[in-house]
Amino acid sequence: MSGVLKPGDTIGILGSGQLGRMIALAAARLGLRTHIYCPDSGPAFDVCAQFTIAAYEDEKALAAFADSVQVVSYEFENVPANTAAFLAARKPVRPGPRALAITQDRFTEKSFLNDLGIPTAPFAAVDSVADLEQAVATLGRPSVLKTRRFGYDGKGQTMIREGDDLAHAFNSLGGGACILEGFVAFAREISVIGARGLDGSFAAFDVCENEHANHILSRTIVPAHAHPAIQTAAIAMAGKIAAALDYVGVITVEMFLVEEAHGAERLVVNEIAPRVHNSGHWTLDGAVTSQFEQHVRAICGWQLGSPARHGAIEMHNLIGAEADDWAALLAQTGVALHLYGKHEAREGRKMGHWTRVLPEKG
Amino acid sequence: MSGVLKPGDTIGILGSGQLGRMIALAAARLGLRTHIYCPDSGPAFDVCAQFTIAAYEDEKALAAFADSVQVVSYEFENVPANTAAFLAARKPVRPGPRALAITQDRFTEKSFLNDLGIPTAPFAAVDSVADLEQAVATLGRPSVLKTRRFGYDGKGQTMIREGDDLAHAFNSLGGGACILEGFVAFAREISVIGARGLDGSFAAFDVCENEHANHILSRTIVPAHAHPAIQTAAIAMAGKIAAALDYVGVITVEMFLVEEAHGAERLVVNEIAPRVHNSGHWTLDGAVTSQFEQHVRAICGWQLGSPARHGAIEMHNLIGAEADDWAALLAQTGVALHLYGKHEAREGRKMGHWTRVLPEKG
Repeated sequence: MSGVLKPGDTIGILGSGQLGRMIALAAARLGLRTHIYCPDSGPAFDVCAQFTIAAYEDEKALAAFADSVQVVSYEFENVPANTAAFLAARKPVRPGPRALAITQDRFTEKSFLNDLGIPTAPFAAVDSVADLEQAVATLGRPSVLKTRRFGYDGKGQTMIREGDDLAHAFNSLGGGACILEGFVAFAREISVIGARGLDGSFAAFDVCENEHANHILSRTIVPAHAHPAIQTAAIAMAGKIAAALDYVGVITVEMFLVEEAHGAERLVVNEIAPRVHNSGHWTLDGAVTSQFEQHVRAICGWQLGSPARHGAIEMHNLIGAEADDWAALLAQTGVALHLYGKHEAREGRKMGHWTRVLPEKG
Repeated sequence: MSGVLKPGDTIGILGSGQLGRMIALAAARLGLRTHIYCPDSGPAFDVCAQFTIAAYEDEKALAAFADSVQVVSYEFENVPANTAAFLAARKPVRPGPRALAITQDRFTEKSFLNDLGIPTAPFAAVDSVADLEQAVATLGRPSVLKTRRFGYDGKGQTMIREGDDLAHAFNSLGGGACILEGFVAFAREISVIGARGLDGSFAAFDVCENEHANHILSRTIVPAHAHPAIQTAAIAMAGKIAAALDYVGVITVEMFLVEEAHGAERLVVNEIAPRVHNSGHWTLDGAVTSQFEQHVRAICGWQLGSPARHGAIEMHNLIGAEADDWAALLAQTGVALHLYGKHEAREGRKMGHWTRVLPEKG
């Protein structure tokens, strides 16, 4: 098979944050080198064999980067389309440019999902205040107005409640291309982290249950509270999405779990992240293969590892000053601490995480 | 306490091999940066924040290195004494220069052990053929002639058997300072890997049983085949040695297990390695805290982690061309593969290792 790497080869990674850092550490364990490309220095630079500081539009730097690696991947979904296309003409980009194009735009993403028969919140494109008035008339209040592109951790979105002024809401997001999503009264947020290999094989970790604070992931527990049939269905959806994208690498599908009458549950897909994911950090300590190693295996064209789980999992993010508790966490037996080497503990900044794996009741 | 590091600080490491590489990877997980110093490039350079290529005698380079780090450690015991002293005058060197001085010389090391009441093979200093004739008369044949310094993996030693010419044996090792050791008819080779913290706390991993091929470690299994009381005694010896050296960091004590009449067992210490050790690589996958993280915790002045073991362990080295089997090993569920990123699979070169952790019979 072409595009299969061997130990000693180099993986190119766009982005220098903690996800790139943890991919680089997993690659190193398997004897691979990494070359990080980013306009700004970041914590991944401290653990890579090579780095390039250059703009994503700098074609000379991109060409040199492509020449130095055997495969290109990325730690974030907002890689510019032109950058992905430029690199893909030179080296395999995994996951491919189509996964980026679809997941960068909430409207395109939800349309893609519905075309696959996968449920999402009801939605409508909003390019003007008039569009928004029309959409709110259809989808009701509360509903959520989001920019189609570049939103994360609650940025680029606003809730539309009874009495809210629609022009103000539209303009507060910059007046660009938006999407209105009907509000989903969910019981829990879950995520499926799976990987698809170059050979089309698919392996998913157990479903994660996620709690957020201030729109930022705070805690993940596994197993999730969800009927076994719903967990199976969630994983099947992720596999279907990955296959439809002809995806190579780790993919994350965030979903809402809605409780119906009589204890029934149903799933609504919220969004797709074409990358390793914060809700999968527990796999470093709680799974046979971590999401980072799994991503490396997939993009290298290697056989996927076992996603089997070691026990009952609890993963907590360390946001901003929470990381100041590092010494107390280090002293707790059974707590695995991970710090990302960021210099400044700004408010809302992900500084690290810790995981506890407990024996599971049989 | 002085000399306690915090996340974001930098650890200096002398040596760029796989041990330095795995220390650097463990440090990165805890948000620490590493600066590798070595006369030659090596696989640790691919995962560190900074590296220096300079001689161990280059005081200008050493001073700049010391300025850039908060603590200095090393991956090998043959750090020149002057280098250690130069650095120790500027930054904490852990383990300290005394541990290096004692473990660099087989005669000094064995004398130190016997002074502690710890058994070794009988031995005698040999500086001439006449010394060797005298020593062989006392210790008998077979016995083992070794250089006092710089031996490893069977290099710098020769067996003295019936009929062997003593002058030839002495000259074959270069004619320098040697030691003759009485032959120990051991049943098994074991090692204790422990760590001593800045606060004097001591924690040891379970005793390892080691098999060698061509004088190079081939396989480690844990638990070792040894009476529980012998295992306790072995760990106690390692703790006693570490305390006597006022040691900070991971220490390895290699021992012979001798079977006596009636099933009794006794221990003979073979040598001390003032560092992480090949026979402890299983801790990456089979212990709560790896030997590399434990070393980082100790030299940073942090609390030691739990050395508890996850199951029954089997660790195999991949020597030279054995690493060509990487794809088959990656495909085996339950096998954790580690490759060191070395470019050339020379004969006898340690290219990687793999570990299998099996549930232990209760």
